[in-house]
Amino acid sequence: MTFPVVGMVGGGQLARMTHEAGIPLGIKFKLLSDTPQDSAAQVAGEVVIGDYRDLDTLRAFARGCDVITFDHEHVPTEHLRALEADGIPVRPGPDALVHAQDKGVMRAKLDEIGAPSPRHRIVADTADAVAFADEVGGFPIILKTVRGGYDGKGVWFVRTAEDARDPFLAGVPVLAEEKVDFVRELAANIVRSPHGQAVAYPVVESRQVDGVCDTVIAPAPDLDEELGGQAQELALRIAKELGVVGHLAVELFQTTDGRILVNELAMRPHNSGHWTMDGAITSQFANHVRAVLDLPLGDPRPRAPWTVMCNVLGGDYPDMYQGYLHCMARDPQLKIHMYGKDVKPGRKVGHVNTYGDDLDETLERARHAADYLRGTIVE
Amino acid sequence: MTFPVVGMVGGGQLARMTHEAGIPLGIKFKLLSDTPQDSAAQVAGEVVIGDYRDLDTLRAFARGCDVITFDHEHVPTEHLRALEADGIPVRPGPDALVHAQDKGVMRAKLDEIGAPSPRHRIVADTADAVAFADEVGGFPIILKTVRGGYDGKGVWFVRTAEDARDPFLAGVPVLAEEKVDFVRELAANIVRSPHGQAVAYPVVESRQVDGVCDTVIAPAPDLDEELGGQAQELALRIAKELGVVGHLAVELFQTTDGRILVNELAMRPHNSGHWTMDGAITSQFANHVRAVLDLPLGDPRPRAPWTVMCNVLGGDYPDMYQGYLHCMARDPQLKIHMYGKDVKPGRKVGHVNTYGDDLDETLERARHAADYLRGTIVE
Repeated sequence: MTFPVVGMVGGGQLARMTHEAGIPLGIKFKLLSDTPQDSAAQVAGEVVIGDYRDLDTLRAFARGCDVITFDHEHVPTEHLRALEADGIPVRPGPDALVHAQDKGVMRAKLDEIGAPSPRHRIVADTADAVAFADEVGGFPIILKTVRGGYDGKGVWFVRTAEDARDPFLAGVPVLAEEKVDFVRELAANIVRSPHGQAVAYPVVESRQVDGVCDTVIAPAPDLDEELGGQAQELALRIAKELGVVGHLAVELFQTTDGRILVNELAMRPHNSGHWTMDGAITSQFANHVRAVLDLPLGDPRPRAPWTVMCNVLGGDYPDMYQGYLHCMARDPQLKIHMYGKDVKPGRKVGHVNTYGDDLDETLERARHAADYLRGTIVE
Repeated sequence: MTFPVVGMVGGGQLARMTHEAGIPLGIKFKLLSDTPQDSAAQVAGEVVIGDYRDLDTLRAFARGCDVITFDHEHVPTEHLRALEADGIPVRPGPDALVHAQDKGVMRAKLDEIGAPSPRHRIVADTADAVAFADEVGGFPIILKTVRGGYDGKGVWFVRTAEDARDPFLAGVPVLAEEKVDFVRELAANIVRSPHGQAVAYPVVESRQVDGVCDTVIAPAPDLDEELGGQAQELALRIAKELGVVGHLAVELFQTTDGRILVNELAMRPHNSGHWTMDGAITSQFANHVRAVLDLPLGDPRPRAPWTVMCNVLGGDYPDMYQGYLHCMARDPQLKIHMYGKDVKPGRKVGHVNTYGDDLDETLERARHAADYLRGTIVE
């Protein structure tokens, strides 16, 4: 048999769920993980423990892999180029991935291809950030380090010149963005393969709490059909222009004046696509694997009128397994996805999916289960 | 966290798919496998290589497991009792499992509880088999070794006294059964937990080719509602009377005169339940895990009007991956499940699932994909 070896860098939950999705395909999955306790390392068959920042480690890992893909976007761009020079297919490749690694490069490229962004520019220091605020009509503004941020880290909501000091302490270039007046956040998830086939999932609504994704509703309720189509087309165009291979999440603001603006890009399976595991004909993870192997992509359409995903965040209760009894007995249709991670307050340790014909009921079921597992509610 | 450790004995595809189903539950899965190349051993995180027939190996494996369950029914009954005596929960337990291990014990128990079987008795030798044939109206009859058979192995279709010699060569007790006039084979799959909760999947039609399961249609087409209910109730009753924990498959004959008779019992996830992976709200594998952990069971109802499973058997083509291009491009809704097994003629190396609103179309899609992967058809 000539089933290929997919090497995945990073042992987080995205790798865990990618491995899960790869099992039915009969492919061989090889993981590069920081520790044997990492989420994916607990459940994968072939695990190499090592530091993805070390080129020799990456090279040794890549040997015998037919393709390399990623759980996160933190592998240095120059290492990815070195792997490519070694003849290893890297998907997404460094020329695409840099746009998800560096928010400055991302904004410049989006401007170049005419994709709508919040007003923005790189700012040199606090005084320059204040000047930018003046240019966009005053504070508040958003400051972001161009590299290294995720889940609200590396992002500052800046109301005063005083607030505009911390972002410069790390010595990393800082991107300033206007504070957009938005009614909600959306995400357009697509998957693209090397030969150019692409599929678009329905656009979803993503609700954040404290900068962390909390709830995703698929499809986004009451979304104007034309605006939804625009969002899908935008994501497909970004993927094509940037040469993305695999899953691309385009996080969007739906503005009060009815436009969509690109907030962030992620070139890997994404939290806003976790609903697809139970709610779509083909999950984002299965399609990501198919894309990086240049296999024909699976049908991205939903299987139910509504699917809701709620993240399970760590709370005060360390023992989430205890909550299974209540949650499973209350809702035999509930889908629990836990990541094998130790509970720490605010940490994403799992998610739940529900689907059904009635949005309110579907939402309530997911909300209840996530809150119960976290320990926020007790019945 | 107190997530439990589920130990599974046997590294075949049932263990592989059980591991896959266990990942979202965040449980720890530990495998006892004959070799590192076994289907499940390729993809599981914690694998112990050893011989399940050796009690010391089993005992060492069971240490640290919260429960032991099985990929197959071949672990000696006395070893299971020893594990139980050590205080390890064994699910299903030896008192239940013996009915799936020994067809003689199974038939005696079914008689005792009034479950309908083909006419049968243990026969001592060829002459006794001929006598049995006379008792049931003449040849053909079926002879089965009471232990060790599966997928048509250990089963003889006996047309003459001459045919009735081989079954006795192994020196194992032989069960004789009448050849039932049946219109088709059905399977009633249920899952039962230690505290007595049980769920019943819709009764399916199972089509065999050369004694090996080939196609499963869920639900069984044109099945009389009352007969379907009888089959589900029968399976639930057998599970209760035999003390089964986990998945129980009751293979049935639907006779020409409109009765159902028990053909075989399997106390583990079963080929006739593979359709549930894509066709039911909760798969047989997920429910088996929930049952052995005494968690509330998941909803067994179908997600689509029709789901069809076709086994992919090994053919002349060793490279099944090549067929993915055609199959995935032709049918973006196709669900492929490959087991990582080397292709040998007639060996079950995977299965495909399709679902849809129209039975003929759903059947054709699954049939085409299975035949194409096997290499029976080329387009």
